Amino acid sequence: MTLDLDTARTIVAGARRHGAEAGLKPLTVVVLDQGGHIVAVEREDGSSNARVAIGFGKANGALALGMGSRSIMARAEQQAYFVNAVTSAVGGSLVPVPGGVLVRDDAGTLLGAVGITGDTSDNDEAAAVAGIESAGLTAQVD
Amino acid sequence: MTLDLDTARTIVAGARRHGAEAGLKPLTVVVLDQGGHIVAVEREDGSSNARVAIGFGKANGALALGMGSRSIMARAEQQAYFVNAVTSAVGGSLVPVPGGVLVRDDAGTLLGAVGITGDTSDNDEAAAVAGIESAGLTAQVD
Amino acid sequence: MTLDLDTARTIVAGARRHGAEAGLKPLTVVVLDQGGHIVAVEREDGSSNARVAIGFGKANGALALGMGSRSIMARAEQQAYFVNAVTSAVGGSLVPVPGGVLVRDDAGTLLGAVGITGDTSDNDEAAAVAGIESAGLTAQVD
Amino acid sequence: MTLDLDTARTIVAGARRHGAEAGLKPLTVVVLDQGGHIVAVEREDGSSNARVAIGFGKANGALALGMGSRSIMARAEQQAYFVNAVTSAVGGSLVPVPGGVLVRDDAGTLLGAVGITGDTSDNDEAAAVAGIESAGLTAQVD
Repeated sequence: MTLDLDTARTIVAGARRHGAEAGLKPLTVVVLDQGGHIVAVEREDGSSNARVAIGFGKANGALALGMGSRSIMARAEQQAYFVNAVTSAVGGSLVPVPGGVLVRDDAGTLLGAVGITGDTSDNDEAAAVAGIESAGLTAQVD
Repeated sequence: MTLDLDTARTIVAGARRHGAEAGLKPLTVVVLDQGGHIVAVEREDGSSNARVAIGFGKANGALALGMGSRSIMARAEQQAYFVNAVTSAVGGSLVPVPGGVLVRDDAGTLLGAVGITGDTSDNDEAAAVAGIESAGLTAQVD
Repeated sequence: MTLDLDTARTIVAGARRHGAEAGLKPLTVVVLDQGGHIVAVEREDGSSNARVAIGFGKANGALALGMGSRSIMARAEQQAYFVNAVTSAVGGSLVPVPGGVLVRDDAGTLLGAVGITGDTSDNDEAAAVAGIESAGLTAQVD
Repeated sequence: MTLDLDTARTIVAGARRHGAEAGLKPLTVVVLDQGGHIVAVEREDGSSNARVAIGFGKANGALALGMGSRSIMARAEQQAYFVNAVTSAVGGSLVPVPGGVLVRDDAGTLLGAVGITGDTSDNDEAAAVAGIESAGLTAQVD
């Protein structure tokens, strides 16, 4: 585990605080370690059934390809068949829209990723960035 | 969602506090709503990669069959093929050892389930019960 | 096994040497025998989590259809649904972008395939060709 | 990636040297980082088709449960239904016989795991230990 639970909880709290202050719809926040395994999840009241799977897919895709899910969306716009193929190759969980953000420390070391879903993809991403920065870490959105 | 996030967070905190006070190994706590969807997860530092999947499988199995995972273990001891078949039928995630505990309110209404893994199955279950009771709710272990 | 381990190791070393000399991003190199089974893999430091799956999918696709993955991309550009269907039919791992290159001996006999990922698809393919040729074998990119 | 490629290559070479010196059957050596992702694989000539999948399953199982695959075998001997259920819950790749060995550094930090298959399970495990120790690291077999 490269992103510890205290850090993950700080990220979740920061992202949810951003969502509340910005008046966003209910958010689901998923924090993964560098290996793509869940460290913490919170699904706010009113989030629909698949939100954890979607948030996981955003964060997992970012770690799978080493880029924020915003960049994966750009690739999907150009070569949908490539993103479909990678999704299939990695076992089916890769959601190519903004909101999957890599987490790095000051030295640039990859610690994990955050996936958020519930509002627009842009707003989801902004909440992820806010959460990561509230923990004193660096967010990579693309 | 029948088990709200504040309640889930209270359960997680209560279960982890029990684990710390009892000197248990690092725990992973998964809280599901009545539909079997994750509301909250926390994986303590040092928990191995599959712990969220195992905790989910305990809680999901409990909801799948309407009994605590301790009872599913009893069935597995008698008819392993039945539990294997149900596991396959529900899509693969049903872990038949103690630690998957149903959550009910005072009126007996089913609200969701908690799955804990990390220490012995008996200790995992005790942590789940402690968490559920710390939220003023009723735990059903079998 | 039609492509032996010594040859596979030579191909991996040649591909990685090409990558280092050309200043490419960290590469993942997957070498398959003619039956589509892994002989050797090396994932360079900094490669993201899904790189082995992607490299495997490029090489496996090449063997699945008997053409370099560059040609499969051409087909995907024209008939994405065909490539999607084949991907599903073969069990999910076929990545239709350049970097999956067939390996033949002097007589044209098919020995296996190399899949490389990490830099642009064109650069990935160039590294695969360099690796194959460093082993005195013939590369088929399309 | 918590176990770098140079280290993985040293482990593979040490394990294969052990196999050659002990006169073992052809070995397949799989090295995973802490997240369960392949860093290096070598399949010796004469290894059968599924050997990479088996070696992966031994190492992945060890990381999934945080114990060497020898301990998972002991659990399977007592509660086969539990190991079957976990295998299903984690997506199907967990091979509960010796030969999946955790890799730790001097401080006890988990770096990854090695999975070896080809000879008897005991001999596979001995090769894994030899490889890990040849890299100056600590092997955890149970």
